[in-house]
Amino acid sequence: MNRFFAVCSLSLAMGLSPVAKALSQDEVLALHQQLLTLDTHLDTPAHLVEPGFDIMARHSPQDSQVDVPKMNEGGLDGGFWAIYSPQGPLTQAGFEKSRDTALLRAMAIHKMVDTHPAVFTFTTNPAEAPAIAKAGKKVVFISMENAYPLGEDISLLATFYKMGLRMVGPVHFKNNQFGDSATDPDGAKWHGLSPLGKALVAKANQLGIVLDGSHSSDAVTEQMIALSKTPIMLSHSASKAIYDHPRNASDALIKKLAASGGVIQVNSYSSYLKALPANPERKAALTALYQNFESLSNPTAEQLADFKAKRHAIDAKYPPVHADFDDFMHHLLHILKVAGPKHVGIGCDWDGGGGVNGMMDVSALPKISARLLKAGYSKADLVDIWGNNALRVLKAAEDYAASLKP
Amino acid sequence: MNRFFAVCSLSLAMGLSPVAKALSQDEVLALHQQLLTLDTHLDTPAHLVEPGFDIMARHSPQDSQVDVPKMNEGGLDGGFWAIYSPQGPLTQAGFEKSRDTALLRAMAIHKMVDTHPAVFTFTTNPAEAPAIAKAGKKVVFISMENAYPLGEDISLLATFYKMGLRMVGPVHFKNNQFGDSATDPDGAKWHGLSPLGKALVAKANQLGIVLDGSHSSDAVTEQMIALSKTPIMLSHSASKAIYDHPRNASDALIKKLAASGGVIQVNSYSSYLKALPANPERKAALTALYQNFESLSNPTAEQLADFKAKRHAIDAKYPPVHADFDDFMHHLLHILKVAGPKHVGIGCDWDGGGGVNGMMDVSALPKISARLLKAGYSKADLVDIWGNNALRVLKAAEDYAASLKP
Repeated sequence: MNRFFAVCSLSLAMGLSPVAKALSQDEVLALHQQLLTLDTHLDTPAHLVEPGFDIMARHSPQDSQVDVPKMNEGGLDGGFWAIYSPQGPLTQAGFEKSRDTALLRAMAIHKMVDTHPAVFTFTTNPAEAPAIAKAGKKVVFISMENAYPLGEDISLLATFYKMGLRMVGPVHFKNNQFGDSATDPDGAKWHGLSPLGKALVAKANQLGIVLDGSHSSDAVTEQMIALSKTPIMLSHSASKAIYDHPRNASDALIKKLAASGGVIQVNSYSSYLKALPANPERKAALTALYQNFESLSNPTAEQLADFKAKRHAIDAKYPPVHADFDDFMHHLLHILKVAGPKHVGIGCDWDGGGGVNGMMDVSALPKISARLLKAGYSKADLVDIWGNNALRVLKAAEDYAASLKP
Repeated sequence: MNRFFAVCSLSLAMGLSPVAKALSQDEVLALHQQLLTLDTHLDTPAHLVEPGFDIMARHSPQDSQVDVPKMNEGGLDGGFWAIYSPQGPLTQAGFEKSRDTALLRAMAIHKMVDTHPAVFTFTTNPAEAPAIAKAGKKVVFISMENAYPLGEDISLLATFYKMGLRMVGPVHFKNNQFGDSATDPDGAKWHGLSPLGKALVAKANQLGIVLDGSHSSDAVTEQMIALSKTPIMLSHSASKAIYDHPRNASDALIKKLAASGGVIQVNSYSSYLKALPANPERKAALTALYQNFESLSNPTAEQLADFKAKRHAIDAKYPPVHADFDDFMHHLLHILKVAGPKHVGIGCDWDGGGGVNGMMDVSALPKISARLLKAGYSKADLVDIWGNNALRVLKAAEDYAASLKP
């Protein structure tokens, strides 16, 4: 019995819905494995720079929710591997430090591919993704979560483009030089995009880079939909109608996004899915731990092991509270009804805080397919949701940029 | 009979000096293969970005003077793989374009290592080089020829440092924002380093990057010797006393360099070794060819093949004229006398214009050892010349930077 069946059996045992009536578990798994499945927000590259990390080895979900054994088990063919940058100070020194870290992160993604050429294929071309997956390899697109490392030098977007970047989200948890975040405790600073943010949109269009509205304030997302010459993506976002959180998208915004040809890729970040009991001791302990760790720019293997041991101890003392797989499906099925299956996909925020009880890593992804089939979605819908919609948006960006060239 | 012996026999047939009397050809070759041999200026990374180029395959010297088969044959254990940038306009657009190309070149060097982990080892640590070579692998240090891609943003030197850069030369054929070139037809602009060039020296010292005076005007080199907190290197330079060319170093300069602990790595670039007959048709044809080719930022395999065919045709119509191996040795032996064997090494400018009749690629390097032995240099001298001197300078830079850290 492989892990997928273990998970399904567990779901049944927990009283969760069984897989599609019409298909056996084996048949669902076989169908899922045939699909091109992409997740549009993999934060796993943060692990790639940890001393000793091996993407080929199996990890606990705490240590990495994405690795090759779990990708194989969960039938995940790849997706957008993110260059994530925490929001730092809006100073030259802050910009430079983040720029360098982001450049090295891009290199780390390429290194993963180059050191495992039989396993991964880097591409910028959406048309190549199906063939890569068919050949049994993992698709590596590169995205950027938080454009902060570009500083005030938009030309660096072209640098990252040349390194393979094909999606960029302007902000993360806080407002920055490009615009407002959905979650800055100080509220709106720019009331949407800053002038530099508008220039970023134009430059992304010119290059053929998809704009990503996840983490953006609603005003930023709406302005990007309006300004962008090609459809935008929310690479990992959930539904405000189901749970009113600033990181989630309202039905009205989702409809506007869909009408413009865009896609929303549904997130599995627990605290955006439903109200969870406050856990202030855990939050305080983790904040202290991460603050100390982030001050180590290049941790040694020993420092990393110490960090992990402390994090595991915090998990033991103040266990994390997650939403359930049903909560994730609640968001996904609602968003599918609002946007239609041509405008929805999967972006679970793996290794960035995603994961719910019953789906704590990518090995459990077949459950999504099973539940979508049970909800009446067709195989063709699954093809769209798991990959084609995101690829369509990527292709539109590429085609627009190509149309500008003489 | 391997190529080395073929070359030695050819030397004998051509009336060149035979190898050391005391040692047989086999013994010289065995001794040479035991040495840690580094060349401090390999321009081969320019080939790494050519479509279809394979460092593991054997190439004609025209197509690449450095590849793994020839490195094995010539006993070359590695060296400094250069991020070379042609001098472009001193404009923001010029800086940005060159910055991006240089960053991608650094990635290409890492890709070479990552895709052939059993063959190459990247390092920044001079202490690791002997063990890498002993394990039968090639040493990859990274250098930068022409700091032009840094634009006016010295902080980018730290970016490249983080990517592994450990040596930088401020200029190439022309004056730039950092200082004067030895060969700018307009003559001196700054009369040495510019203010930004002095900041570059300080930043290189602070980071632990060796300064490289090859291509610099004499005034720049002298100022770098004076300003730098650690010894500098001339990574590929010859002797002005033997042939009066602005790219070469005078005996006085070499003595100053040696007295400061630095090293001069002797170049095999023919037109710096002796006066060669003018070849204006060849020069004009090559200039036209390269101008067209450089306008193609990302040549396709077809465009590259077309370029190579045209270059081969130029070579056939207007054959290149090279200096001879004896000319190279004349410079090397003179410089050894001036500087002493603790301050001299090898930097042949492979794939950057280097190569002489009798030593057109790295497979012929054992000839240098043979001639040095014949000239009376000891095995210990050869150990210094082929690697230890350059490593000492690198270690001094590293130690100084480390001493600044709290």
